[in-house]
Amino acid sequence: MIDWGNLARRPCSWLAEESSAGVILSTRIRLARNLTGRFFPQHAPRNERRGLLQEILDKTQSLEMFEGGHRLALQALEPLQRQLLGERQLVSQELVESPEERGVVVSGDERLSFMINEEDHVRMQAIRPGVDLDGAWRAVDALDDDLDGRLDFAFSSTLGFLTSCPTNVGTGMRASVQAHLPAVVLNKDLERLIEDLRSKRLAIRGFYGEGSAAFGNFFQVSNGTTLGVREAEILERLDAAARELADWEERARQALLSRARSLLEDKVWRSFGILRHARVLGAPETLNHASLLRLGVSLDFLKIPLRTLDEILLCAQPAHAQLLGGADGGTEVDARRAAMVREKLQHVER
Amino acid sequence: MIDWGNLARRPCSWLAEESSAGVILSTRIRLARNLTGRFFPQHAPRNERRGLLQEILDKTQSLEMFEGGHRLALQALEPLQRQLLGERQLVSQELVESPEERGVVVSGDERLSFMINEEDHVRMQAIRPGVDLDGAWRAVDALDDDLDGRLDFAFSSTLGFLTSCPTNVGTGMRASVQAHLPAVVLNKDLERLIEDLRSKRLAIRGFYGEGSAAFGNFFQVSNGTTLGVREAEILERLDAAARELADWEERARQALLSRARSLLEDKVWRSFGILRHARVLGAPETLNHASLLRLGVSLDFLKIPLRTLDEILLCAQPAHAQLLGGADGGTEVDARRAAMVREKLQHVER
Repeated sequence: MIDWGNLARRPCSWLAEESSAGVILSTRIRLARNLTGRFFPQHAPRNERRGLLQEILDKTQSLEMFEGGHRLALQALEPLQRQLLGERQLVSQELVESPEERGVVVSGDERLSFMINEEDHVRMQAIRPGVDLDGAWRAVDALDDDLDGRLDFAFSSTLGFLTSCPTNVGTGMRASVQAHLPAVVLNKDLERLIEDLRSKRLAIRGFYGEGSAAFGNFFQVSNGTTLGVREAEILERLDAAARELADWEERARQALLSRARSLLEDKVWRSFGILRHARVLGAPETLNHASLLRLGVSLDFLKIPLRTLDEILLCAQPAHAQLLGGADGGTEVDARRAAMVREKLQHVER
Repeated sequence: MIDWGNLARRPCSWLAEESSAGVILSTRIRLARNLTGRFFPQHAPRNERRGLLQEILDKTQSLEMFEGGHRLALQALEPLQRQLLGERQLVSQELVESPEERGVVVSGDERLSFMINEEDHVRMQAIRPGVDLDGAWRAVDALDDDLDGRLDFAFSSTLGFLTSCPTNVGTGMRASVQAHLPAVVLNKDLERLIEDLRSKRLAIRGFYGEGSAAFGNFFQVSNGTTLGVREAEILERLDAAARELADWEERARQALLSRARSLLEDKVWRSFGILRHARVLGAPETLNHASLLRLGVSLDFLKIPLRTLDEILLCAQPAHAQLLGGADGGTEVDARRAAMVREKLQHVER
């Protein structure tokens, strides 16, 4: 049994420790795999999907790396609990919204996991704090080897791994870095950055607030198609991208400082004042203020552990704030979120 | 010589001490008088106005009650210095903008003053903290007696004192109270209140931000025409009005509390967060946040001496903030205002 209130309060272990925190929040590698001789999930009859979920859960039960973690059939969870898993980057929005015959297996530290019956039969992922493509790759590769010994993955000697969507055929790999780019956004450099990334066949999208708006100026940058590209090449490309993203952000920060230092400082301190004292806080507003504080800390305007801000960014999300509940379960969620944020910022050295 | 920077930093002595502060900030009584056998100022040739200014300054030089105060020909002042006097309620906007052949005499504690060559030859005023119509009346009446002995005031046995504008003929008296009505405004009761006041022949206008917008929800409520009304009657009417204004505000506060307590509390704390931490603050914004804090203190949401907030309201005004200058004269005025506000709120017990 999961203690959801406790989980909602607990920072992810892949949040960076102070030393490594910065523009790149985390690195993630995902591998898509399918079982030989079966329909892809969206073409499989419900019966077959149900059987497959059970089969995969059974065959992976003894995996050592998931001891102390969770093995979950999503259908058995409340919508809010699924959403919490989504906010912690453990399941996709697809699984949050359509849990039927789908599952997720998560390691105790949440750094390693795999979804069952998403777009593909198995989607593994490894997350690491900061820029760590090697570490994430080694972890997900080891999991891939382990699973391959238990499940028969579909592989073509000419195409590579077969996947439901043609863009994933080949390595079935998507590597991404989660970048915090507040100065790029404030300095109106985002469009130029997106063009630059596109020319390098890299994709960018919002990190918090999936898809549409990039709340808090967090972005996820990943490789595009994987067919005809080797794993090592993808890792190298993302590693270079991570360095470039940091450079873009740094240049934008310098431009902002030389052009509008005092207005920027004011903006940051107002965000601090609001987060430190507000009694009612919505999620998008909180993410945006915390994002500005993260920038302010990097610019030495004020002293708050980045780790504290990253915890706020995680726990201010809708399902997290809702599940914080506990003793004051009757309070409105926006009031509960504000109380959580105030508490985290209470002892901040200014 | 006036030390303007010092004056800009000094609270007015008519700001209420903690004990008496509340809905009614201050009481003011003004008397309009003209000298016999002269043109009213706006009809007098420039020469005559100049002579009159000098004559009145000369004849009132030995008045004891103005010892330690200021005797100023407005033409000799910088525009910013005149504006400061306006913000301290010592001269009208008319005198700030058109200083030619005009003057003001102010007592050391700024509670008693008279303008020369405004709409009338002499306009005396007495200000007192809180509701104090008797005190203000005794002070201005004593000044009136003193001046009448030195200047020959135009008086008609049928009409009373003659004034430039017919609405002032009779007593030449305007009594007003300065009321802080944030809940009335938030609760959208202002229109009903204005109607109620009108039916009692009372006028209401913005206090800060003269005329148009009522920044900070401060209002000035005064008697209308004075012809055919005795002084005592005006004082009684205003005294009743002060009590009613306090009732209106109290009712609106209770309505807000029962309807939207947590949102109101949030609004107040956000205002505190912004004033306590912002690095750049405009005047209207500061007045509005300080107004909300004043409401929050009255509702026991937070503890700040009302006196501190009233000082902020006074010193955040444009000329005050500009003249705060001093050592950091190079800083932008909005940054200087923010620094002043932060300093005043620094040691506030929360």
